[in-house]
Amino acid sequence: MKDKIKIFVPGTVANVACGFDVLGFCLDDIGDGMTIKKVEEPGLRITKIRGCELPFEIDKNVAGVSAKAMYEALNPDCGFEIEIHKGIKPGSGIGSSAASAAGSVFGMNELLGRPYTKLELTAFAMKGEALASQSEHADNLAPALFGGFTLVRSVHPLDILSIPTPDDLYATIIYPQIEIKTAEARALLPEKVDLKLAIAQWANLGSLVHGLHIGDFELIRRSLKDVVVEPYRKQLIPKYDIIKAIALESGALGCSISGSGPSMFALSKGKATAEKVKSGFETIYQDSDIDSQTLVSRINTKGIKIL
Amino acid sequence: MKDKIKIFVPGTVANVACGFDVLGFCLDDIGDGMTIKKVEEPGLRITKIRGCELPFEIDKNVAGVSAKAMYEALNPDCGFEIEIHKGIKPGSGIGSSAASAAGSVFGMNELLGRPYTKLELTAFAMKGEALASQSEHADNLAPALFGGFTLVRSVHPLDILSIPTPDDLYATIIYPQIEIKTAEARALLPEKVDLKLAIAQWANLGSLVHGLHIGDFELIRRSLKDVVVEPYRKQLIPKYDIIKAIALESGALGCSISGSGPSMFALSKGKATAEKVKSGFETIYQDSDIDSQTLVSRINTKGIKIL
Repeated sequence: MKDKIKIFVPGTVANVACGFDVLGFCLDDIGDGMTIKKVEEPGLRITKIRGCELPFEIDKNVAGVSAKAMYEALNPDCGFEIEIHKGIKPGSGIGSSAASAAGSVFGMNELLGRPYTKLELTAFAMKGEALASQSEHADNLAPALFGGFTLVRSVHPLDILSIPTPDDLYATIIYPQIEIKTAEARALLPEKVDLKLAIAQWANLGSLVHGLHIGDFELIRRSLKDVVVEPYRKQLIPKYDIIKAIALESGALGCSISGSGPSMFALSKGKATAEKVKSGFETIYQDSDIDSQTLVSRINTKGIKIL
Repeated sequence: MKDKIKIFVPGTVANVACGFDVLGFCLDDIGDGMTIKKVEEPGLRITKIRGCELPFEIDKNVAGVSAKAMYEALNPDCGFEIEIHKGIKPGSGIGSSAASAAGSVFGMNELLGRPYTKLELTAFAMKGEALASQSEHADNLAPALFGGFTLVRSVHPLDILSIPTPDDLYATIIYPQIEIKTAEARALLPEKVDLKLAIAQWANLGSLVHGLHIGDFELIRRSLKDVVVEPYRKQLIPKYDIIKAIALESGALGCSISGSGPSMFALSKGKATAEKVKSGFETIYQDSDIDSQTLVSRINTKGIKIL
């Protein structure tokens, strides 16, 4: 069995429009690199962090906390060294902490001969996510570990479904480099919502799941809406309405907030349309103080990849 | 072309648990008989009504109102005579008015060589439904016309999706013969609902649609819940909790209110389980003043049938 593994841990989009809090998908063209080594000396050590400044202490590092949860559950007679090369900027809204949390347990699991299922790995990784966001959730972890579109039906007990990804579906991401505190994004959510809007939201989510199954892009277009949360959270993102209008005018199927922002995603049929959306996105903050990054990614149906 | 058609117009279940207001399915073993005749004399006439007392005036009869909507849109140089043999008791909660509204337009459309799609027929039939319920809705009409499970994504514009029906799925119905006024059932609904519950509801509906697609009965079981509306409406039905407990103990995948009641439905894998649920249902009101009827039905994937 190998004692060292290098992996690509992808970015992910959670809160996919009508699938707020439950539906996510996996990106292919942005992610972290991680190297996990199995060593004789027991315990866990983070030996290298590149790409951004994060704590090396296991209990203060998202990758460390998830690794520790798995390590303590399995209690193997070896130790692990973890190297993290962050390609996903923390706070960007495309699953940076989920990548770290998922990557460490995925890599260790591979080196140990896969004692755990992906569902079990998700449960360990949720401990790491909780360090970052103060609550256990799996909506970014699930697409990172399972790939494609995932629906987290329930967190307790954990119930994750892999929804089919139609061929030729591409995401365009715009990341305005502003800070949105998760607590702030959460505080904007009302405790109660109009029953009529909630019904529209579940009609759309049911339809979106159906559309993904049958590969009906026009149905995906009609369904890819968030009538419940977007009205509250859009104020967090400067030029939100313009970003969305440009995406839709460029032919995107839909456009909404990625996670709790500040990144936004658009989904398109075909790479050409996704690139057109990207070109539009590049103009958004040209005349403002806000720096932004954009990218096009095919939907990654595999999740974490062994390099 | 034929000038007379006899049809079986099935009962339907709307408000399928987490699919409140959007998801319905079609029954096979209960329905109305209707005979539609094309005649030279212009206009519409209801010539016979059996099974219950309903008005013969076109504008006061659900089947008449929907027929008139289609007749006036098409303006054919003929007339129609409609015979109605009600097998579904009005007010039972399994789509009695929808059957009448759908049957007349379906039959006329057949006799005219199908000028209209099922979606267009649904739109005409909604006019008849509106007479019965004071609002245009399609959640019983869609399964009656399309068969199987249907999801009404939107009423304006009308957007109806046919969701796959797994083989071997059966419904058990219990109809306690009490009256529930639609207005009363509506008045019980709150204007606002907890966001957390709404999220659980759309997670379940997305999962149920996925479960129907892949034929995963255990997923259907986990998803077939209504955490939003049931707590308010269950008080309308005497012994609600006992009915539900008996269904689940007998092995049903789920059990909830059919439409706005008083009927309740259970879904089961296999006819034997559905029959066991029926046997349990038969005991519910034995020692009470309430009469009840029960039935088992395969899910009807065809909808209205020409006899």
